[in-house]
Amino acid sequence: MKIFKVDKTLVSTSRISMMEHKPLLVVREKDGGTPQVAVDPIGCKPGDWVLCVGSSAARDAVGIKGYPSDLTIVGIIDKWEMPEDGNSSS
Amino acid sequence: MKIFKVDKTLVSTSRISMMEHKPLLVVREKDGGTPQVAVDPIGCKPGDWVLCVGSSAARDAVGIKGYPSDLTIVGIIDKWEMPEDGNSSS
Amino acid sequence: MKIFKVDKTLVSTSRISMMEHKPLLVVREKDGGTPQVAVDPIGCKPGDWVLCVGSSAARDAVGIKGYPSDLTIVGIIDKWEMPEDGNSSS
Amino acid sequence: MKIFKVDKTLVSTSRISMMEHKPLLVVREKDGGTPQVAVDPIGCKPGDWVLCVGSSAARDAVGIKGYPSDLTIVGIIDKWEMPEDGNSSS
Amino acid sequence: MKIFKVDKTLVSTSRISMMEHKPLLVVREKDGGTPQVAVDPIGCKPGDWVLCVGSSAARDAVGIKGYPSDLTIVGIIDKWEMPEDGNSSS
Repeated sequence: MKIFKVDKTLVSTSRISMMEHKPLLVVREKDGGTPQVAVDPIGCKPGDWVLCVGSSAARDAVGIKGYPSDLTIVGIIDKWEMPEDGNSSS
Repeated sequence: MKIFKVDKTLVSTSRISMMEHKPLLVVREKDGGTPQVAVDPIGCKPGDWVLCVGSSAARDAVGIKGYPSDLTIVGIIDKWEMPEDGNSSS
Repeated sequence: MKIFKVDKTLVSTSRISMMEHKPLLVVREKDGGTPQVAVDPIGCKPGDWVLCVGSSAARDAVGIKGYPSDLTIVGIIDKWEMPEDGNSSS
Repeated sequence: MKIFKVDKTLVSTSRISMMEHKPLLVVREKDGGTPQVAVDPIGCKPGDWVLCVGSSAARDAVGIKGYPSDLTIVGIIDKWEMPEDGNSSS
Repeated sequence: MKIFKVDKTLVSTSRISMMEHKPLLVVREKDGGTPQVAVDPIGCKPGDWVLCVGSSAARDAVGIKGYPSDLTIVGIIDKWEMPEDGNSSS
């Protein structure tokens, strides 16, 4: 699983019916990082650090059999300080 | 899911029969980015910012059981301004 | 799906029986790029630009149930000019 | 499979019910590397070098059918000296 | 599939029971590259250039239904000269 910070809600009115009305959130591995989109079955808010699962596990984690997700939030991290890692720019 | 901008249609006359005649679009994470190819079950046009699902979920998202896709468009994003991220060159 | 250029045939005499005698081709995203190996159910030749599917879809795309592939050619692109992208070195 | 060093336990009180109470560990490919989170069905401690499986195999490896993991520890490496690789910063 | 060079055997005494006693080999895409670990159902030796399959195909390729692998050796390459690619350091 990877750790992401919730940025904001993504609005996509024209979507395939299988996506239903599940909330989609823009998440990033760090501020300014590449945006990705995760399905949120928990109810997160901007600024939350969350745990996301990918691969085929992302599908069942939504709670709907066969949901077409490849990135799903599975937990909110209680406390997370993003370390100054090697892949940080400064 | 990842966010891509639709570039153009990909023409591949010689394809395996399982691919049928589904439209294939060249998409990029940003202008000038590495081209990837996504199956389009919605009907997108060049310039649209779209949400694509990968992994095994890409298969069912096409709407045909067992379709051999690993990247499928699942929604058109209502409004998207590509942020000036760390991985942009300028 | 990703776009690759066919380089040459890969010879692997000692292989697991599930691989059968399907042709294996060395493919690259661009000239001089990292070589990968794709199963070829179509009959491509060196220099062809091809569309390859990965993930679990690569298995069924070979045309043999449960074939152990994670990269399979699903189409030959009619015409492709590799753009001078940001990830090209020159 | 990839090799990771165990950093610490991750606390996520608010998680989807499918995650149960399995221990989650923050792991890194090297000191200061990007943190990832793995399910630990063995009982590892900080500093252990471990072998992690991803993809769909991560699910069954937890020992619970359909568990939503994409990274699971499958073994503790007896002895591992992280080589000074090309992707090390020094 | 990707091409790797076999480095050495990995010893992991404490492993989940599903891993059984299958040999695990440390492999690298090039000398000094990031080490990964592949299951070896063939019987390779250090220095061999091998073809490895990932994704869900890695599981069945081991020859044991449901084996928890995400990287399995499926063939030994008869002859391979690592080209001086763009991602080589020299």
